[in-house]
Amino acid sequence: MTHPLFEKHRATLEGAVAAIASRAYWSAYNEMPSPKAYGETAPDDGKRAFEAHLGKQFELGQPGQSGWHGGETSPYGMALGVSYPVCDPDALIAAGLAAMKGWQDVGADGRTGICLEILERLNKQSFELAHAVMMTTGQGWMMAFQAGAPHAQDRGLEAVAYAWREQSFVPAETVWEKPQGKNPPLVMKKHFQIVGRGIGLVIGCGTFPTWNTYPGLFAALATGNAVIIKPHSNAILPAAITVRTVRAVLAEHGLDPNLVSLCVADKRATTQALATHPAVRSVDFTGSNVFGQWLIDNCRQAQVYAELAGVNNIVIDSTNAYKAMLGNLAFTLSLYSGQMCTTSQALFVPAGGIDTEDGHKSYDEVCADLGKAIERFLSKPEVACAVLGAIQSADTSDRIELANSGQLGKVVLASTALTNPDFPAAKVRTPVLLACDAADEKAYMEERFGPISFVVKVADSAAAIALSERVVSTHGALTVGLYSTRQDVIDAMTEASWRGKVALSINLTGGVFVNQSAAYSDYHGTGGNPSANASYSDSAFVANRFRVVQRRYHV
Amino acid sequence: MTHPLFEKHRATLEGAVAAIASRAYWSAYNEMPSPKAYGETAPDDGKRAFEAHLGKQFELGQPGQSGWHGGETSPYGMALGVSYPVCDPDALIAAGLAAMKGWQDVGADGRTGICLEILERLNKQSFELAHAVMMTTGQGWMMAFQAGAPHAQDRGLEAVAYAWREQSFVPAETVWEKPQGKNPPLVMKKHFQIVGRGIGLVIGCGTFPTWNTYPGLFAALATGNAVIIKPHSNAILPAAITVRTVRAVLAEHGLDPNLVSLCVADKRATTQALATHPAVRSVDFTGSNVFGQWLIDNCRQAQVYAELAGVNNIVIDSTNAYKAMLGNLAFTLSLYSGQMCTTSQALFVPAGGIDTEDGHKSYDEVCADLGKAIERFLSKPEVACAVLGAIQSADTSDRIELANSGQLGKVVLASTALTNPDFPAAKVRTPVLLACDAADEKAYMEERFGPISFVVKVADSAAAIALSERVVSTHGALTVGLYSTRQDVIDAMTEASWRGKVALSINLTGGVFVNQSAAYSDYHGTGGNPSANASYSDSAFVANRFRVVQRRYHV
Repeated sequence: MTHPLFEKHRATLEGAVAAIASRAYWSAYNEMPSPKAYGETAPDDGKRAFEAHLGKQFELGQPGQSGWHGGETSPYGMALGVSYPVCDPDALIAAGLAAMKGWQDVGADGRTGICLEILERLNKQSFELAHAVMMTTGQGWMMAFQAGAPHAQDRGLEAVAYAWREQSFVPAETVWEKPQGKNPPLVMKKHFQIVGRGIGLVIGCGTFPTWNTYPGLFAALATGNAVIIKPHSNAILPAAITVRTVRAVLAEHGLDPNLVSLCVADKRATTQALATHPAVRSVDFTGSNVFGQWLIDNCRQAQVYAELAGVNNIVIDSTNAYKAMLGNLAFTLSLYSGQMCTTSQALFVPAGGIDTEDGHKSYDEVCADLGKAIERFLSKPEVACAVLGAIQSADTSDRIELANSGQLGKVVLASTALTNPDFPAAKVRTPVLLACDAADEKAYMEERFGPISFVVKVADSAAAIALSERVVSTHGALTVGLYSTRQDVIDAMTEASWRGKVALSINLTGGVFVNQSAAYSDYHGTGGNPSANASYSDSAFVANRFRVVQRRYHV
Repeated sequence: MTHPLFEKHRATLEGAVAAIASRAYWSAYNEMPSPKAYGETAPDDGKRAFEAHLGKQFELGQPGQSGWHGGETSPYGMALGVSYPVCDPDALIAAGLAAMKGWQDVGADGRTGICLEILERLNKQSFELAHAVMMTTGQGWMMAFQAGAPHAQDRGLEAVAYAWREQSFVPAETVWEKPQGKNPPLVMKKHFQIVGRGIGLVIGCGTFPTWNTYPGLFAALATGNAVIIKPHSNAILPAAITVRTVRAVLAEHGLDPNLVSLCVADKRATTQALATHPAVRSVDFTGSNVFGQWLIDNCRQAQVYAELAGVNNIVIDSTNAYKAMLGNLAFTLSLYSGQMCTTSQALFVPAGGIDTEDGHKSYDEVCADLGKAIERFLSKPEVACAVLGAIQSADTSDRIELANSGQLGKVVLASTALTNPDFPAAKVRTPVLLACDAADEKAYMEERFGPISFVVKVADSAAAIALSERVVSTHGALTVGLYSTRQDVIDAMTEASWRGKVALSINLTGGVFVNQSAAYSDYHGTGGNPSANASYSDSAFVANRFRVVQRRYHV
């Protein structure tokens, strides 16, 4: 009775369901871009597959097409020249709704099996996707591969696992037999049908076009909905490749491919009309507070799952591994030039300095040592280019210039331009580190997306924790960190993180970084502070995406 | 390590968790108001406990009290004269927030155990609660007991079971060990803390002050939130008794009773300010579309779970049990004078009549026979008074008069006034049955709450099903019914119910009625059409009421 693709991928599903229960380490997709893992020809095949898209019209066979639109600019300076179908949103909605009945009919196990098949196919395209992510976002190669392909696939599978677990709780049918004392019991047969709610709109961002898109895509899809992906205007290709593969797998299994479509909108008004359409019942969004709040305020017909901006921060109270701490922070602040929603922006350091295993360090010493650690870490150009990637947007470049000018705080380390020999036109910028006082709230207490961080001088550690909590509660944060050797400080920060509802990383000095979030184990966002109203993934991320319709009769 | 009250009530919890998984019949609380079930003195004790409230100030010991307010009018005409503390909403919010930390600290098992203890205590008060529900709502005694006490308690326990299941998926801690090839693995200890989101506001209705309040109350409470109950101005006493018991149990177990409070608001503006307060993170509401939509539109800071109005309907295509069908419908339309959100309002009958085991019946015959069946069912005054109860509001009386006037359709059976010998001042009214054409949409296509139903003449069964679906999709419905002996008609109606997302009852001719919804088995509302945006209960009803905050560090 179970769907063949459910049986085919049962072990993977069981692994994922076990992982979300234990939250121990697990992964379905190899994160190493190696021929050993993906096949001898995979790297070349993937590169060629990516290159085959360039300068072409990306056919998707969607309904309501009126033309083509493209115009992505690579942060690496390479010409992309891909154009994508422009389709009437109403036609995409109508076709998506029409496809839902067949999708409902395959049942939760069928939908789960097909989603797992799609993920397996996407995994085989990991090199192609990685090039597309790298060239549209400016991520370095390794990050583009890992975050853009296997890690994004893991996040998608995680959502499928949650969706499966919740749907599997709904019995297809039951016999309800109520005793009536000495009389015969009342007996009813009841059937329970899982139905999707309508169109799930997934609005992608410019920096993580798959990692931040797959959770919403697969959560909505697995729970019986049609999905329209509206990618960021500068990161369409990874979404287009994904949509083409989804549509192909659906068609191969006798399902209407119009269940999932790509909506390339060149005007914000188009996206707004789409997001507020009565048939759209969920909106997944990653991006700016302005548009995110607009969606929350205006999409009253839909559940909105929004990841917005925040001011991630770290309290540095003390450490017994000073050098390792600085190294860990240097990596965090450098990775993808800080263009991550999880990168730390404000580091709170007591005015009186901190105790370390290497003696007391003054506030000024901490600033200077962190600046030096970043310089040292990026001293080899090939390392620097690989880690930094390229600057994704002109706005980020402008923010770097502003920070470099000294207007936001004292420049501890200025951002410099590097040249990437493989991509001479790439905009490569090292991080800028500023020093400022806790009172300079205007400087550090709004998100300054990009490689811009502040070492903020606070009265003492208690004040730092209080300030961190206030920043989290009022401006939001996806991540906070703490360095401390004192249990009472750790306890105080822990309690602050509960009140602020933010994930806390303590004393990271090794190969894990505060801006990393591992599928199945780390909740990405809590949904409890202004930086996000939902989490990847938890039950709340999937449970409200489907409805149960019952029928009952006497037997 | 587990909380003692969790252990004490473990068997009850396990029963409830098994029941929501199988959706077979189960109940924790005896629905018979018998001394055998509740103890020899329970009926008298409960009556005395109820009477002891009359004419008194109902002390709750809440903060911020500025005075007293009451003024409930019993539909049975008895003087109640209870007054309740009026407290500053900001004081209730501040006290609720302050109580949340202790509530978080007892953990999911502690919260679950304490909720189960509260429910057990409420169950022991079932007679007292039943009198309070009866006298404030106008329900008949048996219904007031069952729906007001054990069935409401079952709905509360059901929400606790869902909340427990979801929270139990979150491990308290894990060790995350990621292999690093030939290097030592990355090892992290992670902790996961469940935290409530803030204040859960539960806004009660005038007809089911416990049954419609307990799901939201216990869902919010079990998931770690503080709760403020804002009862309907005419059904405060059942909520006040509930809140007093909750507060007593909390205090007895060393917890701050201000976690749960009663907010008696004499102005809508007070409720509006409360509902939009930033600390209020969930709103549970049962009531009118106007205020419900206001909440959805304005409470952007909260998740709103709303049960609103609808136009429940039944398609009558054919039957092989004509008399039993009419008897079943007569009971449904009479019970509590149709003052249930699940009562059928529109019965769609083909213009050409219906086939029955007793031969073909014309549309006019069906109208007349249903009218006679209602008359016959209510022919004994003691049965009529017990089933009908009393009319809860003047608005409902006005609607009955309007229907009786013939302005909404041809009067098949007029509503008449009966006298309840035990309560001579009670407003007792029999149902009014109207006949109209499908084109008379203005008459039947808006909710006319109360004992007012329409036998709507439609072209044929296919048109009836299409009309039912349109009514459900545009105006909402919690219930639809079908009578048919033809499988193709049953299949068509089943598919319509999936599209309209509404619960369907087929060929009810025995002791189950379309307006009844059994905890653990029947989903009350699907959340998928305009009558409700949530269901009692499912995972979606609980999963978004708490957040998980993690912390991680190297080991």
